[in-house]
Amino acid sequence: MSGLQDLLREDLRGHEPYGAPQLDVPVALNTNESSYEVPRTVVDAIVRRVGEVAPTLNRYPDREFAAVREALAGYVTSTTGCAVDADQIWAANGSNEVLQHLVQAFGGAERTALGFTPSYSMHPLISRGMGMTWIDGMRSCDPAVFDVSAQLAASQAREVDPHVVFLCSPNNPTGTALALDVVEAVYEAAPHAIIVVDEAYAEFARPGTPSALTLLPGRERLVVTRTMSKAFAFAGVRLGYLAADAELTSLLRLVRLPYHLSAVTQAVTCAAFEHTGDMLAMVEAIKGSRDALVAGLDALGLTPVPSDANFVLVGGFPDERATWQALLERGVLVRDVGIPHHLRITAGTPEETQAVLTALREVISTPARKDSR
Amino acid sequence: MSGLQDLLREDLRGHEPYGAPQLDVPVALNTNESSYEVPRTVVDAIVRRVGEVAPTLNRYPDREFAAVREALAGYVTSTTGCAVDADQIWAANGSNEVLQHLVQAFGGAERTALGFTPSYSMHPLISRGMGMTWIDGMRSCDPAVFDVSAQLAASQAREVDPHVVFLCSPNNPTGTALALDVVEAVYEAAPHAIIVVDEAYAEFARPGTPSALTLLPGRERLVVTRTMSKAFAFAGVRLGYLAADAELTSLLRLVRLPYHLSAVTQAVTCAAFEHTGDMLAMVEAIKGSRDALVAGLDALGLTPVPSDANFVLVGGFPDERATWQALLERGVLVRDVGIPHHLRITAGTPEETQAVLTALREVISTPARKDSR
Repeated sequence: MSGLQDLLREDLRGHEPYGAPQLDVPVALNTNESSYEVPRTVVDAIVRRVGEVAPTLNRYPDREFAAVREALAGYVTSTTGCAVDADQIWAANGSNEVLQHLVQAFGGAERTALGFTPSYSMHPLISRGMGMTWIDGMRSCDPAVFDVSAQLAASQAREVDPHVVFLCSPNNPTGTALALDVVEAVYEAAPHAIIVVDEAYAEFARPGTPSALTLLPGRERLVVTRTMSKAFAFAGVRLGYLAADAELTSLLRLVRLPYHLSAVTQAVTCAAFEHTGDMLAMVEAIKGSRDALVAGLDALGLTPVPSDANFVLVGGFPDERATWQALLERGVLVRDVGIPHHLRITAGTPEETQAVLTALREVISTPARKDSR
Repeated sequence: MSGLQDLLREDLRGHEPYGAPQLDVPVALNTNESSYEVPRTVVDAIVRRVGEVAPTLNRYPDREFAAVREALAGYVTSTTGCAVDADQIWAANGSNEVLQHLVQAFGGAERTALGFTPSYSMHPLISRGMGMTWIDGMRSCDPAVFDVSAQLAASQAREVDPHVVFLCSPNNPTGTALALDVVEAVYEAAPHAIIVVDEAYAEFARPGTPSALTLLPGRERLVVTRTMSKAFAFAGVRLGYLAADAELTSLLRLVRLPYHLSAVTQAVTCAAFEHTGDMLAMVEAIKGSRDALVAGLDALGLTPVPSDANFVLVGGFPDERATWQALLERGVLVRDVGIPHHLRITAGTPEETQAVLTALREVISTPARKDSR
């Protein structure tokens, strides 16, 4: 321990930074990126828009990112059927920063956040990072069932009386969308809380899956967060957003750093919305890969969890860390999310899906070595 | 007060968001931007680099932003003569985010930050935003003197025993660089603190002004922050950085959100460093405007503060708010920084300098109206 470690905030000492390994492998299916490159039409629009804004980068960007908010409101309204105005939209550098703004405004030290584990691991990290107490709620009484029970969630919310509640639908890393009665029940049971429904993967949901956006009218404490990293294949741009009551989004201006969205990020985001159809063209293909992955895993005798996302959580591994390592040795990188006997696999191209299934078939038919990690 | 206001963190209630007015005026000299557009060579490099990265924006960016760190280390080393390695560099979306990372790692709730007012107003905002207690230190015993006294600063640091100390050199909004003995004295007097020297305006300093970078060797708790917003004319890009001990920068990975610097931001930053000379070409011209502004203000009978920055703080206004308004009515936007009888004016082009001096001459020869704001 050096002197600097001693000066670190007490609750950070000895911790490791968050982050999946960034390894150069033939088949990278560990961070739920899109395997499809940004389409040519959008690349051209990006280059044109950035060329337009580049000479004036000596000036600060529009602090209120009005054009981005308009574009996002139009997208949400037209694709979900839920009418959302630009002033109901907030955006930041990735949905993680959107979540951080929410925690900073409505949480902070001596306040409590509630989530239902296993879920997106940044929810507790962001909450604790802002000094909140994190309560790990139970999803169900049966640890093998990943669906959240409305009754159980509401009773925990009532008991904890939290300041922020995190729900996640489709849930990362388990993949299944949340029934809306859970959101409604938690909203009623936690009257002092901002209720955050993280819908990062919403565009991949199976037909008929409703969005929590439909619950926004009349619920001023409800927030639905989304991202352009997944369905929009825009992970490198870092653009996350939320839809909520206009007054709630306005209050986030108290905690955002001024000019937090660069003029370049704003230009690139607007370029994408010139060609929304092209950007989302691969969503159906990815859903097809996802369903093929589920079927293939099932055929291997493994236990995939029903997925509304661009990934599949699959159980049935006696030693998931050994399997993770054996797959990596075959050039396939998946995610060990810390759930015993399970691994998470991103749905990529048909070729990648085939590659991971082939590698898995080899691995599970090979007895595990004792010295594997 | 709505229900949402009641859910806000207690210390945020009733506050107004930070931010200078973004008004469309002929002469905008209120936010210390560069008045010179980004040069053509850099615009071309930006377009080329963004075009190269655009197809692969489906992938997350390099979480460690290695190329950006290399470029910044090279720039700092070659321009200041202080050898700084890439692993001593940290960067984020604007130096505000760099400062926030520092406060989040080494500050937080139940900890204390010390600064010397008047200084950059985001220092207390970022500290309080992370739950810290902010102590407003005195710069000198004479409120009309803006220089910091080493002895007074050190004695306050010793008494407060803070976790983070903010120094600012050249100081915003007063403009004068700090003598290095102040940094040395405060470093010794605050043995449990990270000492942050905010050098956002360092490239504009008068000849012979030393940088706190020269003090880094052997001082593991010292941090020097800088930005590309000012001398680099890159305010729209949001790229701030720091140089410090390599272990200190590594600890910031505990609090940064993963992938906080987008692939586009990384590409645009690297494009600028292809043409560092072109980017900095206007610095001497701006320093010339600054010196002309000081001389012109002096000739008007006003009292400009000696400036090492791209702005001038000037005193001598019976009613600075009335003068601010009267200048705005003449199409000139300057900054009311809350110091009685003073205004802050950015050094722009020679034409802008002339325009603000002409407008000021008119305004100060016109008796103030009683109804002005």
